[in-house]
Amino acid sequence: MADGMEQERLAAAVAKNRKVVLRGYIERVPREDDMELVDGGAVELRVPEGVGGGPTVLVKNLYLSCDPYMRGRMQDFIHGSYIPPFKPGSPIEGFGVGRVVHSTHPGFGAGDVVAGMTGWEDYSLITEPEQLRKIEPSDIPLSYHLGLLGMPGFTAYVGFYEICSPKKGEFVFISAASGAVGQIVGQLAKMHGCYVVGSAGSNQKVELLKEKFGFHAAFNYKEEPDLTAALKRYFPEGIDIYFENVGGPMLDAVLLNMRTHGRIAVCGMVSQLGVTSHVGIHNLFSLISKRIDMKGFIQSDYHHLFPQFVDDITKHYRDGKIVYVEDLSVGLESGPAAFVGLFSGRNVGKQVVCVSED
Amino acid sequence: MADGMEQERLAAAVAKNRKVVLRGYIERVPREDDMELVDGGAVELRVPEGVGGGPTVLVKNLYLSCDPYMRGRMQDFIHGSYIPPFKPGSPIEGFGVGRVVHSTHPGFGAGDVVAGMTGWEDYSLITEPEQLRKIEPSDIPLSYHLGLLGMPGFTAYVGFYEICSPKKGEFVFISAASGAVGQIVGQLAKMHGCYVVGSAGSNQKVELLKEKFGFHAAFNYKEEPDLTAALKRYFPEGIDIYFENVGGPMLDAVLLNMRTHGRIAVCGMVSQLGVTSHVGIHNLFSLISKRIDMKGFIQSDYHHLFPQFVDDITKHYRDGKIVYVEDLSVGLESGPAAFVGLFSGRNVGKQVVCVSED
Repeated sequence: MADGMEQERLAAAVAKNRKVVLRGYIERVPREDDMELVDGGAVELRVPEGVGGGPTVLVKNLYLSCDPYMRGRMQDFIHGSYIPPFKPGSPIEGFGVGRVVHSTHPGFGAGDVVAGMTGWEDYSLITEPEQLRKIEPSDIPLSYHLGLLGMPGFTAYVGFYEICSPKKGEFVFISAASGAVGQIVGQLAKMHGCYVVGSAGSNQKVELLKEKFGFHAAFNYKEEPDLTAALKRYFPEGIDIYFENVGGPMLDAVLLNMRTHGRIAVCGMVSQLGVTSHVGIHNLFSLISKRIDMKGFIQSDYHHLFPQFVDDITKHYRDGKIVYVEDLSVGLESGPAAFVGLFSGRNVGKQVVCVSED
Repeated sequence: MADGMEQERLAAAVAKNRKVVLRGYIERVPREDDMELVDGGAVELRVPEGVGGGPTVLVKNLYLSCDPYMRGRMQDFIHGSYIPPFKPGSPIEGFGVGRVVHSTHPGFGAGDVVAGMTGWEDYSLITEPEQLRKIEPSDIPLSYHLGLLGMPGFTAYVGFYEICSPKKGEFVFISAASGAVGQIVGQLAKMHGCYVVGSAGSNQKVELLKEKFGFHAAFNYKEEPDLTAALKRYFPEGIDIYFENVGGPMLDAVLLNMRTHGRIAVCGMVSQLGVTSHVGIHNLFSLISKRIDMKGFIQSDYHHLFPQFVDDITKHYRDGKIVYVEDLSVGLESGPAAFVGLFSGRNVGKQVVCVSED
């Protein structure tokens, strides 16, 4: 009977819902005014009857993830894209952590904390709850499930172990190294016995790489007029493994500094996203002379490794062998600026938006 | 005693030796006048005393191979090159088939036919005879040991089976498909049960691909204003395997037409050799969205497979399952023009220079 009364109470409860919507498709680097915070009116704090045609979960969003790949969803569908575009006028979608308010799915109940695809709004109706994963209470900050233990962490894990075929003692270079993915790749590579150098776009980030993440060396690419010469300085014997996060001139410089039988894991090219005329890569002939294996990958192809990833990284974290740095932006209204900041490197560490703390 | 007399006779015998020498280093597409036919004076038809400091073989060159990689040896040493440059004023070096005139190496005797690195001249002293391989008399034309059963054939064999991971029913695209390597890749792919399309630079070559080599389809890239659209037409479901021989705009068009988990074997980029400012590749983001594995390779890394390659291809040839087309140019003096022709696609099939028939 208490349950029935509780349901009754929820049926009456409403809350204000705000949304960050995409104004229209773009084909350039995103700007804040490509998105708009709108008043979504009042939302009933329960799953409406008949919505979605199946079990549905209403979540209150706590943390939202800002990831570079989202830029690809801000343009109209292009051939070969692996993910459908956002809908103009509808909320931005992305990974998030939320608390279940009400659920018609037997696997989730009010109060559960979940991570998965959600909307950039205060409350979201998740009509495909199978994609949510429940987060058990622990000592790990909730927002880390968007980074260290989320898609970026899994990208680092899969990319390093499955794509790079690392061997102890090898020379590893990571671009955008203080970012959501790079900081983890670097720490995994160091644990693996590799020599690790990272590049980043500010001296503050370079310090972070060396002091906080323990990279053997790091440099500010903006202060290097000749990237090829810079890499030659940091890798006099060449690079065995390049974890490619940026594309453009850095990739060209790396190609000239690779060692024979080197591997390049390609997952980023952030710098090229949203640039209609992509900067050309000129040194691919190195692929032949150095017998390089350059491989693109998407973490979701390796779904079967996710449980092992969570176990491994959780253990490393608890053992103090891996740390994680986030750039936490507060308030849903700060979302557009936080997201746009990714493309100028404004964020220091993984960019997260805190919508609510509980 | 007869042997002694024969040696005596050879000691006295001399022959005219001509050489094709490199005039000086270049950093552009080769021209005929970058090389020069010079009178090398008379050569004694025996290995001189004390030459080379070890066992040496004097060969009379019969066939010389023209290969695109040789362009790389016409420029001064550049970082990352995998083979040393030619010496200006000295003969061009390359693969050849020759007949042994005299040998101080126990493994080779006068009259043996050998294949290996030799000079562009009538007679060459081979001071590293270990790199020569003896060719047993057979029904296979001697010049085929520079193509079908030589480095180009082995490149095709290694590239297709070791790099492309082919599966029956996959869609295979080959650029420069009528060339020394491409024609073999296409025939191997067809034997493997793949759907095979090739591109070439003339209608004559396109006919050859379809009529002689049995490609399922072929097109003249020079008649296609939009390579991306052309590939879409020939591969409505996309390309699983691209055997990359040319680089440049064709590679960019292919990247947009690859299927998920496609493979690109990179061994050529002929069109980019000798171009100081290489044409940029713009569509590498496809590596990520399509999870493409793009891998450079050099046949010599797979030396252990050479005997199996010779057995397999010889069998296919004798069974009539594989054919080979050569462009035979007659006379050492025709060498420079024959070599230069590679870069404008003048050759139809594997370019060989016949210095002498016996």
